[in-house]
Amino acid sequence: MSELRVAVIGAGLMGADHVSRIGQRIVGAHVSVIVEPDEARAKAALANAPGAAWYPNTDDAIAAKAMDAVLIATPGQFHEPVLLPALNAGLPILCEKPLTTDTESSLRIVEAEVACGKQLIQVGFMRRFDEGYMALRDLIASGESGELLGLHCAHRNPTVPDTYHNDMLIFDSVVHEIDAVRFLTDSPITSVEVKHMKRNTLSPEGLNEPILVLLGTESGLLATVEMNVSVQFGYQVKTEAVFQKGIAEIGRTSGMTRFFDGSISTSEHMSFKTRFAAAYDNQIQRWVNAVAIGTIDGPSAWDGYLAAAAVDAGVKALNSGANETVTYAAKPKFYN
Amino acid sequence: MSELRVAVIGAGLMGADHVSRIGQRIVGAHVSVIVEPDEARAKAALANAPGAAWYPNTDDAIAAKAMDAVLIATPGQFHEPVLLPALNAGLPILCEKPLTTDTESSLRIVEAEVACGKQLIQVGFMRRFDEGYMALRDLIASGESGELLGLHCAHRNPTVPDTYHNDMLIFDSVVHEIDAVRFLTDSPITSVEVKHMKRNTLSPEGLNEPILVLLGTESGLLATVEMNVSVQFGYQVKTEAVFQKGIAEIGRTSGMTRFFDGSISTSEHMSFKTRFAAAYDNQIQRWVNAVAIGTIDGPSAWDGYLAAAAVDAGVKALNSGANETVTYAAKPKFYN
Amino acid sequence: MSELRVAVIGAGLMGADHVSRIGQRIVGAHVSVIVEPDEARAKAALANAPGAAWYPNTDDAIAAKAMDAVLIATPGQFHEPVLLPALNAGLPILCEKPLTTDTESSLRIVEAEVACGKQLIQVGFMRRFDEGYMALRDLIASGESGELLGLHCAHRNPTVPDTYHNDMLIFDSVVHEIDAVRFLTDSPITSVEVKHMKRNTLSPEGLNEPILVLLGTESGLLATVEMNVSVQFGYQVKTEAVFQKGIAEIGRTSGMTRFFDGSISTSEHMSFKTRFAAAYDNQIQRWVNAVAIGTIDGPSAWDGYLAAAAVDAGVKALNSGANETVTYAAKPKFYN
Amino acid sequence: MSELRVAVIGAGLMGADHVSRIGQRIVGAHVSVIVEPDEARAKAALANAPGAAWYPNTDDAIAAKAMDAVLIATPGQFHEPVLLPALNAGLPILCEKPLTTDTESSLRIVEAEVACGKQLIQVGFMRRFDEGYMALRDLIASGESGELLGLHCAHRNPTVPDTYHNDMLIFDSVVHEIDAVRFLTDSPITSVEVKHMKRNTLSPEGLNEPILVLLGTESGLLATVEMNVSVQFGYQVKTEAVFQKGIAEIGRTSGMTRFFDGSISTSEHMSFKTRFAAAYDNQIQRWVNAVAIGTIDGPSAWDGYLAAAAVDAGVKALNSGANETVTYAAKPKFYN
Repeated sequence: MSELRVAVIGAGLMGADHVSRIGQRIVGAHVSVIVEPDEARAKAALANAPGAAWYPNTDDAIAAKAMDAVLIATPGQFHEPVLLPALNAGLPILCEKPLTTDTESSLRIVEAEVACGKQLIQVGFMRRFDEGYMALRDLIASGESGELLGLHCAHRNPTVPDTYHNDMLIFDSVVHEIDAVRFLTDSPITSVEVKHMKRNTLSPEGLNEPILVLLGTESGLLATVEMNVSVQFGYQVKTEAVFQKGIAEIGRTSGMTRFFDGSISTSEHMSFKTRFAAAYDNQIQRWVNAVAIGTIDGPSAWDGYLAAAAVDAGVKALNSGANETVTYAAKPKFYN
Repeated sequence: MSELRVAVIGAGLMGADHVSRIGQRIVGAHVSVIVEPDEARAKAALANAPGAAWYPNTDDAIAAKAMDAVLIATPGQFHEPVLLPALNAGLPILCEKPLTTDTESSLRIVEAEVACGKQLIQVGFMRRFDEGYMALRDLIASGESGELLGLHCAHRNPTVPDTYHNDMLIFDSVVHEIDAVRFLTDSPITSVEVKHMKRNTLSPEGLNEPILVLLGTESGLLATVEMNVSVQFGYQVKTEAVFQKGIAEIGRTSGMTRFFDGSISTSEHMSFKTRFAAAYDNQIQRWVNAVAIGTIDGPSAWDGYLAAAAVDAGVKALNSGANETVTYAAKPKFYN
Repeated sequence: MSELRVAVIGAGLMGADHVSRIGQRIVGAHVSVIVEPDEARAKAALANAPGAAWYPNTDDAIAAKAMDAVLIATPGQFHEPVLLPALNAGLPILCEKPLTTDTESSLRIVEAEVACGKQLIQVGFMRRFDEGYMALRDLIASGESGELLGLHCAHRNPTVPDTYHNDMLIFDSVVHEIDAVRFLTDSPITSVEVKHMKRNTLSPEGLNEPILVLLGTESGLLATVEMNVSVQFGYQVKTEAVFQKGIAEIGRTSGMTRFFDGSISTSEHMSFKTRFAAAYDNQIQRWVNAVAIGTIDGPSAWDGYLAAAAVDAGVKALNSGANETVTYAAKPKFYN
Repeated sequence: MSELRVAVIGAGLMGADHVSRIGQRIVGAHVSVIVEPDEARAKAALANAPGAAWYPNTDDAIAAKAMDAVLIATPGQFHEPVLLPALNAGLPILCEKPLTTDTESSLRIVEAEVACGKQLIQVGFMRRFDEGYMALRDLIASGESGELLGLHCAHRNPTVPDTYHNDMLIFDSVVHEIDAVRFLTDSPITSVEVKHMKRNTLSPEGLNEPILVLLGTESGLLATVEMNVSVQFGYQVKTEAVFQKGIAEIGRTSGMTRFFDGSISTSEHMSFKTRFAAAYDNQIQRWVNAVAIGTIDGPSAWDGYLAAAAVDAGVKALNSGANETVTYAAKPKFYN
């Protein structure tokens, strides 16, 4: 049961985020290697990966055999030169989207993996792990709402940096919907068309958006995607699915809303296990972290005592019907 | 950086849940000991704690020094006989609520901890770690809505087992609001009164509920708690906070709703980092788990290729204004 | 089919509002008499009641037989001296709440009406005509959610004038819930208790609120009423009904929300007849009003033409699959 | 102040509905003439229009001069032969949409009206009178959310009759959005394109829908319209407006939802005048109607007395802090 040693390739925004994630929230793995040509970036990331080694290039890191798996977080144009040696070394790979930046190179990677005889590559389309998308896929698959007829997607960012350019609307942003539509429908995209909405003058100069992308699938579905990267108010990713018998929507902050049978509904919890799942996890993780530095990070025994005293009064009040006063011992200075 | 060795005391419903949580979702800790007199229960829990030792009683486990910290999940009446030896051994303790089942024994524990000279006990009031409660506490503390004037709480379970009895309404259920009201208001409960609503005839025989509990705080607040354990439809825990200038509500599935300035609002995300935080974590945890058994558990290189091809068409469509067809290479059998 | 001639007694805030309502929105009635001692107020109201006569006192108005019915909108302490002569004259009466300001005088009115041998008095508890209350009453009566166990009401005003005093919290404000709880439950209020929440320092001096009123009904129900008149953010009147099997809530801007069977739902329309009922009414009323002054107040023939042209293009596009251009004739100056 | 005498032309579904509306809810007008060739339909409508005359054709009705205004509710293809003589007679006209069924005839009507020298025709695009559309138009005009960039509309019917055919998707249904988009944007539609979503097999045979209609405006806006007439679950008409700085949505049952500045909000009432506007109107209209037949239709004096007694107890409880019992006189049989 030894932990997975992960090499994170690229320590930019996404790479650094993955280093923290693996260190703080992922069980059974730790970052053993960071590959990053820029020394300052590498050092910043290493601060969150105690014990990890730094390599300026991937080949040396692979040669050193200091990892069991590779997480690629470099810009897309540098994916292929990491993917190929990692495949050759037989290492499992989680590769941030896109796999590569064009069709031909993507196909070369596929061929290289097939030649390995074993699937080693997973691509970072993380929406497939979002609760909303998973719930919508299940609803589609169940058939209970009838056949799926179309999808209306919106992908809205408050702003983008000046370096964001027109083609990135597709390969950096709409690519998520391109995978998500296929994930939801199990049918490949067979046509794409782009319409321009009125240009947002708050966009960076030269950026011509928002756009409306029409995706057609092999199965005959039409999906619209509003791709909008300067809408100021917030970050919103939603999909409205049009079925034969009604509508379902995900991405509105709280799970799926369903429009069926004259009713608009969301789900309520049925158990504390789901309602407070995150609270339980947070509680124990923070306690574990606090214990490591010799403290607690939550309610104390004194808090427990105060509750006990009020509970006693409550039970008494329950049985007496009267207004019961609660009195407490003096608080030990110890707890201040 | 060695991991925290946790002894879980009690392997019933809650204890077994904690064993799984620590094994699967908590970084930096593992279960090294399970204390449980019932052999069948112990064995079931051990299945989720590879390498952990089983002890039928706490004293032997402590004598064996096979833990760095203790998580107590026995029924409340057995807390004191575990807390005292664990304190004596100087072990950090996370104790499920209640601390103990009555005021006197709770105070004994407090005195024992004070005698230790160091705070070792944390009590499992996990609502303090729920996002809604944390956000509401922050709002109260900020003062931006004016002073807090009162709270309306509802704590609703679909059903309870036949063994649930009247006093448990307070010491097992309302105890959560008793701590939460103090957590929110920073003021101890100084009075408790119980009113009966009309009895739910779907409740177990002899159980007289729902009830309305009125909690008064030292600071002059009134908090009402509807405690309702047979309401069938779902598990709902909510609090409506009445301020001088408006209302805020938590527990309605999706964070806090605020009623201020003629507007009813919830928050929208401002970044993918919060919108997809859980998806990123899920993705990587499932990948780590899959790698451990030599597979992937997410989108494959073939998925990456399919997206790349559609992206190419999309970029072309963006620039041409036409409907662009996407064609794909034949899918290698390898990916079926 | 002659119209009902209504005498409005009292031309203060509510009376003036009723004069406008009858003139502008009520079919089959008009205001024939305004009784108001204050000449300035009377004249202001008469401006909205063309043809109506002004009387400074009720007795003269009744003697003049210039009405078929009476709407009483004076302050409560002046209701009895209007009710009795109106009853004697055999006139139908709509009396703003309260009937009178104390129990004894109310009972005298009841006795006087009984002596008439015919029910002539209707009291202005207008919440009985609110869609939410009507829907909730229907839900309770249907029994489909099980028995009703309790009600949580909130009645929230942004502010009140300085003349509003403590007892008015009950007789002017909570009186609405007092009638509404009985209307909903068909069971009289048999006990009342008042608790103080923390005082809102934004309330007028001397006003001690918000309060929590506990109403017990003969049928064993408990209803809580938060009465809050300085809550700044808005005017909110809501009721949460606790049933055996779930929860229903009214007054949250959009009809009833139901919490049943693991689902949170509101109703969707099933027909344009309900979705656009108000729009149809508004359209025709505004057209009627405009015609009276020789104009139209809505889309013109030119608007109709523009739509026709776009429709033509749309039908063409439907059949061609192409992007069809719409062209229009020059707009006649006539329509500017 | 004599009432407007309206001739309703056509007593089918819409015509009959307008006859009822004018009779029951429109102040200042009554139906004086019904023109309908089908005697059975005419008689059914006349039942709701006491005193109205029946004419089988429009010319005779106009010759009889028994109306001050004309409301046209015949099928669209019969609009022109009514519009022209009504214009010639100088009568104000409210004409159900469409003005006529094609561009050429619509333009003839426009020319005839211009020749009259006075605008007499209003077209029945009643969405312009819907609160949501009015609020959205105001928001657009205010400029506070930045420029409007695009609109996503959905127009969803549960079912349509078998007589509904493909072109009606545009001229009967999308025509509403065609006018509404122009109403909202003040810019004419200059292009239309239709895409097919996957066909709903629950549609009537031969009907090929849902469709996605793309409307371009002269001002450069793109509006999408999902036109869907077999979606089973309900009748839903919504529009999502994409601005430079955020999103606003209407048609989701309860007014406009706004997505701006990291917040999702709807409006709360600020006064009982809006919160209970409909309840007040309903109350008085039902009272007027009841008085006409010698009854009341609302809370009685006995209801008023019961409230008064509970109020007395409430005031007492407010001042005593105790639980005050309410007692009532025996209920007179009179009120049973």
